[in-house]
Amino acid sequence: MQGVFPILVTPFDAEERVDEDSLRSVVEFNISAGVHGLGIALGSEILKLTEAERSLVISVVVNQTRGRVPIVVNTGAQANLTAALYSRQAEELGASAVMCLPPSPVSAAEARSYFRAISDTVHIPVFIQDTMTTPVSAGLIRQIAEESEHVRYAKVESPPQPTQVQAAVAASGGLVSIFGGAGGTYLLEELRRGGVGTMPWPSQPHAFVEIWNAWQAGDERRAVEIHEREIAPLALLSTAGLRLGHTIHKELLRRRGVIRHARVRAPSDPLDDITTRELDAICDRLGIGSAVA
Amino acid sequence: MQGVFPILVTPFDAEERVDEDSLRSVVEFNISAGVHGLGIALGSEILKLTEAERSLVISVVVNQTRGRVPIVVNTGAQANLTAALYSRQAEELGASAVMCLPPSPVSAAEARSYFRAISDTVHIPVFIQDTMTTPVSAGLIRQIAEESEHVRYAKVESPPQPTQVQAAVAASGGLVSIFGGAGGTYLLEELRRGGVGTMPWPSQPHAFVEIWNAWQAGDERRAVEIHEREIAPLALLSTAGLRLGHTIHKELLRRRGVIRHARVRAPSDPLDDITTRELDAICDRLGIGSAVA
Amino acid sequence: MQGVFPILVTPFDAEERVDEDSLRSVVEFNISAGVHGLGIALGSEILKLTEAERSLVISVVVNQTRGRVPIVVNTGAQANLTAALYSRQAEELGASAVMCLPPSPVSAAEARSYFRAISDTVHIPVFIQDTMTTPVSAGLIRQIAEESEHVRYAKVESPPQPTQVQAAVAASGGLVSIFGGAGGTYLLEELRRGGVGTMPWPSQPHAFVEIWNAWQAGDERRAVEIHEREIAPLALLSTAGLRLGHTIHKELLRRRGVIRHARVRAPSDPLDDITTRELDAICDRLGIGSAVA
Amino acid sequence: MQGVFPILVTPFDAEERVDEDSLRSVVEFNISAGVHGLGIALGSEILKLTEAERSLVISVVVNQTRGRVPIVVNTGAQANLTAALYSRQAEELGASAVMCLPPSPVSAAEARSYFRAISDTVHIPVFIQDTMTTPVSAGLIRQIAEESEHVRYAKVESPPQPTQVQAAVAASGGLVSIFGGAGGTYLLEELRRGGVGTMPWPSQPHAFVEIWNAWQAGDERRAVEIHEREIAPLALLSTAGLRLGHTIHKELLRRRGVIRHARVRAPSDPLDDITTRELDAICDRLGIGSAVA
Repeated sequence: MQGVFPILVTPFDAEERVDEDSLRSVVEFNISAGVHGLGIALGSEILKLTEAERSLVISVVVNQTRGRVPIVVNTGAQANLTAALYSRQAEELGASAVMCLPPSPVSAAEARSYFRAISDTVHIPVFIQDTMTTPVSAGLIRQIAEESEHVRYAKVESPPQPTQVQAAVAASGGLVSIFGGAGGTYLLEELRRGGVGTMPWPSQPHAFVEIWNAWQAGDERRAVEIHEREIAPLALLSTAGLRLGHTIHKELLRRRGVIRHARVRAPSDPLDDITTRELDAICDRLGIGSAVA
Repeated sequence: MQGVFPILVTPFDAEERVDEDSLRSVVEFNISAGVHGLGIALGSEILKLTEAERSLVISVVVNQTRGRVPIVVNTGAQANLTAALYSRQAEELGASAVMCLPPSPVSAAEARSYFRAISDTVHIPVFIQDTMTTPVSAGLIRQIAEESEHVRYAKVESPPQPTQVQAAVAASGGLVSIFGGAGGTYLLEELRRGGVGTMPWPSQPHAFVEIWNAWQAGDERRAVEIHEREIAPLALLSTAGLRLGHTIHKELLRRRGVIRHARVRAPSDPLDDITTRELDAICDRLGIGSAVA
Repeated sequence: MQGVFPILVTPFDAEERVDEDSLRSVVEFNISAGVHGLGIALGSEILKLTEAERSLVISVVVNQTRGRVPIVVNTGAQANLTAALYSRQAEELGASAVMCLPPSPVSAAEARSYFRAISDTVHIPVFIQDTMTTPVSAGLIRQIAEESEHVRYAKVESPPQPTQVQAAVAASGGLVSIFGGAGGTYLLEELRRGGVGTMPWPSQPHAFVEIWNAWQAGDERRAVEIHEREIAPLALLSTAGLRLGHTIHKELLRRRGVIRHARVRAPSDPLDDITTRELDAICDRLGIGSAVA
Repeated sequence: MQGVFPILVTPFDAEERVDEDSLRSVVEFNISAGVHGLGIALGSEILKLTEAERSLVISVVVNQTRGRVPIVVNTGAQANLTAALYSRQAEELGASAVMCLPPSPVSAAEARSYFRAISDTVHIPVFIQDTMTTPVSAGLIRQIAEESEHVRYAKVESPPQPTQVQAAVAASGGLVSIFGGAGGTYLLEELRRGGVGTMPWPSQPHAFVEIWNAWQAGDERRAVEIHEREIAPLALLSTAGLRLGHTIHKELLRRRGVIRHARVRAPSDPLDDITTRELDAICDRLGIGSAVA
């Protein structure tokens, strides 16, 4: 697996139930843009879903995707047993790979036992997920992969992301493929340092696929140009407020007509007037939909 | 509600299933010691349980308790909707109160909406849970209580605990009763600053009840004496390693013959030889059980 | 005071002594670009200087500036007495204002006593400096200003910066003027939320002044355009590695011919090959100097 | 070097000047109790002193000590050059060893270059200081020692302290001697795990020396008994408030008649009434001085 793997949002209806039609629509919007895979993870508000809702989301996405691209599902949990259980369930529901962040706080020995337990339970690849609050060092990623046969991928997004991707690639000895995260903000910096994929928001798949293709074709100048025009302004806006990413990218998908409601499951600070106008200005320039709700 | 509310451990059998008999035994051990309430929360490894396991644990504890003391159940979650759902379920299963830590990270406005949503869903008291990683300031506790009719308790355990308890009591205006946590390490410091209860491990309920009774009777010297002899040495040992508390207090309950297995759900670093000998020495002095497994 | 106040770098020679000529050159480069003020602060590696070196840097900058623009000097320290002492010394050396981050960790009462002590010692304005590791909440900024007559400014750069600037402006009641920091990354977002100034690196003063002038003239589109072309790419690169900002902006000043050596006082990770090529590409596009050392 | 190395407080007079007589008195009080060394470090409020005051404190302590025990001086700084400079100055003033915490944040490569620079400048042993906010892993301690000939000691006090001491001892390969810190709270736990020394507050040197001697004589029961009676109650009280340690231990020394004033350099929250009564009760039991100011 490599390339652009957008993390799907979970659209909700006005009663905050999973909006299956809109979810299917996000899947199609991304596959038709040429993405190389799909993800269900933190960006999908997965930690805000009940167990039943998580299974529902996985099933709908698998059913809609029909094998056209691989699907990576976040099944991390606070215990080896529950992470292994959720991972096996995801596999049974049709996931192509699982991705787990370790419990927090955790010793290196505990992290190793955790990924070993998951790897021993599934028959599909396992991603280690490194985040700011649950960092997994480059050396530990390698050690876990040596001990756990299905752990062959890591998504690295503890800051500073490009440096961490580079360290993970260097330590991997070719055993682990390194993806970046962070909304694709540092995609080109990560590719230059050996990253082989990215897991951005699912609101701009065409731009990300274009960047990927330009990079593969050796046209770095063009890749940078698209990133600066399409991705960077939204990345900046997303970090200008607390947890604003979900809200902005759902709103973008709504304006594009992909999902019906932009609602983020509470607690979630709403888009204030100033931020809305900033988003309007960016959408204007990018020719994205209208603000009419 | 006030007094000693031990947080029950969740005993597991060798296959890591909930050991219902041992769980009932922990309930009896504590009630017979004269505790004023029981809790099911982080110390119960609740974050390591599936939704079904959590319901099972609540049901067993409610069934065994038969109304003799109130039961506080941690039902915190990452979303208003799920926290409210789990809270209503706990109430339906027989909980006397729910206790929720806010999602993290969270703005003050989000924290207020979160507790409002929970309060609006239940008919029983709600505890705000303040922890090191999810702090809720004294002023915010008061503001939430003013807006949410069922929020009438807070368990304060962000460091430095006694100072934080004091601030919460001062800000509460009598609207919120403040409990301490932190394994009861600072129980007397908290009582002197207006705390009205504690939520310790469930392995030493007699000692905690004796301390409570001595304090109520005005015999502070005796309260200090018991705390220093019975509680402080284990509190020190529990903080000497990462997340060692669960392991030590389950082992203590096993040695006392209350539960069958001391197993903590992985990932969990085991008791090493040196720590085991340190625990042996403390148990010897306190006349607690034998180390024979 | 308002507008663009670049924080000067402290250039070093090959023996790591302060290079006075290069420092004077950075001052001229910025003043001639039309900046509204200058700063000597964290970006000046001030925490890496001895007391004597700090005084030297202040003296050289004051002497070179000759009153053409105000100079803000960071004089924060771990104690009221030392912060007050360094503040008075800076005033005597010719500083127009001082800027202090509070000690860490600190209670609200301690922060108030700290700024009171500084304010009582000087006759020039005092900036409160809020950072990620030493946050000062919007409400506390207001309270300090009410108690301390010279505290009339705050530089707000704890994340998310624009939201924090907005909160500080709202709480200030017009008593405190709010500047942004963070290398000017969020300058426009901050201006839209009531910020009145920025303290960026001193390597791109023309671009920052142009953005400022466009904003003042109501030409927001042009302001955004310059920011995206000139500032954003370097801001992204600066956050791609740990503490890379000093290294990149000193290198930029060297390539522009403003300073002789780009050396950052150790410990400091050097620019690796990939990052150097990334910087080369940005410099090429912006028409900045040559990479010949 | 091994054993009990109290970190001296810096006594101040009513004008907050260093009170040399009281400082000499603290030195004598500790040496006469039989301590094995003395330290000037964070517990000495060293970060709150000017450069001149630091030199004064070192000189007075060296002069008073007259070679009877070794003196370890904290000379850490944010730059290699300044840490090396302060270390050489400390050596010239008569320090027996220097102790440095690394700058923060810092990469492993930077930490290595930092200690190398210090080691290359002095002719006396260098302690690595590991703290909660500037952690140095066990493996990195070993690597630094291999590269830097004078780095032969580490003071380990990032939590959980006994576990970290154990890891550092295991990784050291006999090349580095490991001391504990944390006010001696975990002294026995650290000794059992291979620690060879402790750096407590200087207010209870007799008790610490007694514990040390009992431990050396193999009488662990007695060591525990003294620790629980003399050290643990004050350790608990010290952690019950933010940065309360300096205030409590200066007050203890004042009550013992060792220093004239208990003043801690501001900002520093004062002892409130409840805490004062708690301290009174502990002093009563330990037979320490009177509360009369």
